[in-house]
Amino acid sequence: MDNLAHSNETTSRPATRSRISPAEALQLVLDTATQLPAEPMPMLETLGLVLAEAVAVDRDQPPFDRAMMDGYAVPEGAAGSELSVIDQVAAGGVSPVRLGEGHCVEIMTGAPAPAGTAAVVPKEHTRPGEKGVLLPKQITPGQHVVPRGSECREGEVILRPGDRVDALAIAAMASFGKTSVRVIRRPTLAIVTTGAELIPADGVPGESQIRDANGPMLWAMAQGLGLAPVGLAHAGDQIDTILENLERFSDCDVLIVAGGVSVGRFDFVPEAVTQVGAELIFHKVRQKPGKPLLFARRGDQLIFGLPGNPLACHICFHRYVGPAIRKMQGQDPNRAELTGRLTEPVEPRRGRTHFVLGMVDEVVGAGPLPSVRPLPGKSSADVFRAVGPNCYLEIPPRPDTIPAGASISFTRLDKI
Amino acid sequence: MDNLAHSNETTSRPATRSRISPAEALQLVLDTATQLPAEPMPMLETLGLVLAEAVAVDRDQPPFDRAMMDGYAVPEGAAGSELSVIDQVAAGGVSPVRLGEGHCVEIMTGAPAPAGTAAVVPKEHTRPGEKGVLLPKQITPGQHVVPRGSECREGEVILRPGDRVDALAIAAMASFGKTSVRVIRRPTLAIVTTGAELIPADGVPGESQIRDANGPMLWAMAQGLGLAPVGLAHAGDQIDTILENLERFSDCDVLIVAGGVSVGRFDFVPEAVTQVGAELIFHKVRQKPGKPLLFARRGDQLIFGLPGNPLACHICFHRYVGPAIRKMQGQDPNRAELTGRLTEPVEPRRGRTHFVLGMVDEVVGAGPLPSVRPLPGKSSADVFRAVGPNCYLEIPPRPDTIPAGASISFTRLDKI
Repeated sequence: MDNLAHSNETTSRPATRSRISPAEALQLVLDTATQLPAEPMPMLETLGLVLAEAVAVDRDQPPFDRAMMDGYAVPEGAAGSELSVIDQVAAGGVSPVRLGEGHCVEIMTGAPAPAGTAAVVPKEHTRPGEKGVLLPKQITPGQHVVPRGSECREGEVILRPGDRVDALAIAAMASFGKTSVRVIRRPTLAIVTTGAELIPADGVPGESQIRDANGPMLWAMAQGLGLAPVGLAHAGDQIDTILENLERFSDCDVLIVAGGVSVGRFDFVPEAVTQVGAELIFHKVRQKPGKPLLFARRGDQLIFGLPGNPLACHICFHRYVGPAIRKMQGQDPNRAELTGRLTEPVEPRRGRTHFVLGMVDEVVGAGPLPSVRPLPGKSSADVFRAVGPNCYLEIPPRPDTIPAGASISFTRLDKI
Repeated sequence: MDNLAHSNETTSRPATRSRISPAEALQLVLDTATQLPAEPMPMLETLGLVLAEAVAVDRDQPPFDRAMMDGYAVPEGAAGSELSVIDQVAAGGVSPVRLGEGHCVEIMTGAPAPAGTAAVVPKEHTRPGEKGVLLPKQITPGQHVVPRGSECREGEVILRPGDRVDALAIAAMASFGKTSVRVIRRPTLAIVTTGAELIPADGVPGESQIRDANGPMLWAMAQGLGLAPVGLAHAGDQIDTILENLERFSDCDVLIVAGGVSVGRFDFVPEAVTQVGAELIFHKVRQKPGKPLLFARRGDQLIFGLPGNPLACHICFHRYVGPAIRKMQGQDPNRAELTGRLTEPVEPRRGRTHFVLGMVDEVVGAGPLPSVRPLPGKSSADVFRAVGPNCYLEIPPRPDTIPAGASISFTRLDKI
């Protein structure tokens, strides 16, 4: 390892950024994350993903003059007359009839109107006659018929690269027979936790041990973004096991390492990241919690070194990992920065942006600004009081208390 | 079947409601849907679900006096003196030392402070001395130590029945060793499409056929609510195949039948639902699209008969099926009814509420009301123009045009 460390000293790299602002850190993350390649995927698995190809109409929609009511397809000039019913056509069927004077075809909703149809007359507007049906005195030409191609024309592009697939896009693709479609793929993601004091959630902790909260929490946050993490490993706090796991997950698009990013005697993550040849892009951000945040790139892989305390881990995923994942998927990376009104005073931190979990009203338009309530938390490791938040308040570094009623920036948490 | 129909006539049932308002229909759905039973589930699979049990702290948090910095655990009255370093303790380790006058223990972040610790002095505030370390003149009692139990006490309830599981709740459960937890389970759901003109998305349609859009669209909408539908079947438009599928999916909590709910010659769903012994709760709602909506109950099963046109299907899932599913899962059933300002005039429908897909600004607090733009659509079957909406406008039945700038109710679409 001495050799490795030595060889690193001889390569020239841009100086690692340190103690930058949260905005600078986010910008560096987004400058580094790039959109992933597209791949074909079965239509039903693309919900929420971004299209990488245009989807065009395969044939006119509707593909025939479609009856919109149950009734009679009638020819021109038939108002007020009695017509004989010479055929019947249901949805899925075809009538060979060409409508002419004196006759009509009984037709069901969704069926193709026979040639020569001028209108469809709903059954309830007719009366039985001696040889057929008696039609009303008023028939509007074209009534209750949707003409072929009136919704869209064969070849017309309905979905475009960059469109996000929602249920309506699925409906359109199904209609056009587009059962496989090219989308920007999801990143693969692995989570490595570090810390000799940690045991898994199903273990019985010894006197000085605690159960790992970060692994399951980060797994859940990745799930919330639609990802299924490919691995969750624990690396203790020896540099060898950390290096082993950096190697093991070298193929992932995103690798999250939680803990061990500070400058303590057992904080080997910065060193390990450099030893595997990754480019350290920044280390330490002027924020609380989450000051030790580390960000590096190894080839196309993004490596996030998140602080070990769970609340720091949580804000760093929300504010940096989430945007990177969205950018990789071709989506708008950032959650909108919104403005609310504080329900109670908050204490800024000198020189550091303070991120605080909070609750914001769902209601829009009830007043000029929604109310935002910071949630209590006794320490930056206190994940237990923080149940049920739906936003993060961003409290700027200022010398004085920000009073109740002041306006405050916030971002919504990802919905799960 | 005659026998079945006959036996139905002899049972007394409340009269089926017909042509009710959308609000009355939603109320009937919510009066009928009941919360599902709880079941134990692996912690990592509960994201988004509602807890059915309290989760308590299994031991004090932190479980020991925890060092928050790398440095030295020192006894009382040590400020300004030199102490010999008689032990070292890392996270996960334990020092058997009881601190007394004249000595200290080197300690790492996350490690348990030895007995007798008055404070932790960060390494960078000390200097090497002749026999040990020289301490600063000022040491605040308790500094950089989080006392045992200061975050929460053993037995304290942190998560309660009714709380929704988010990533922070997962972190808390992991910390307490709660790897399996009782949650209100998700409903099972099946989708049956009807209509003789429909073929699957991977088929080649004949002259009078179209590909089914509703099955895949409803599947995607269920996915968007976190459900994995247990079945998707096509039943043509013969009553026998519809009855067969009602039988096949009799065990599901929610059964959606799309198409065949109107009053046409081949609209057998209302009859089939009655024949299998379901209680028809309402049929037809004063809305556009989606007027033929049918809702029934068979034992604990909810049956939704959605109209066959895709936009009608979409609004009916959004407005009636989604709330039922949320209520069954113990969640707040309704999407908030929000108010926005119309960007352009809209034409109300006489006697019917008109639901129109639209776009609303993400921004909150930019002004008193967000802008809401209705999306164009040529007919109520025209699903192809409706790509990218994020809300539904609810246009009340009024005789006159509602002008641009007027306020309008809307609900957000479920995020996917």
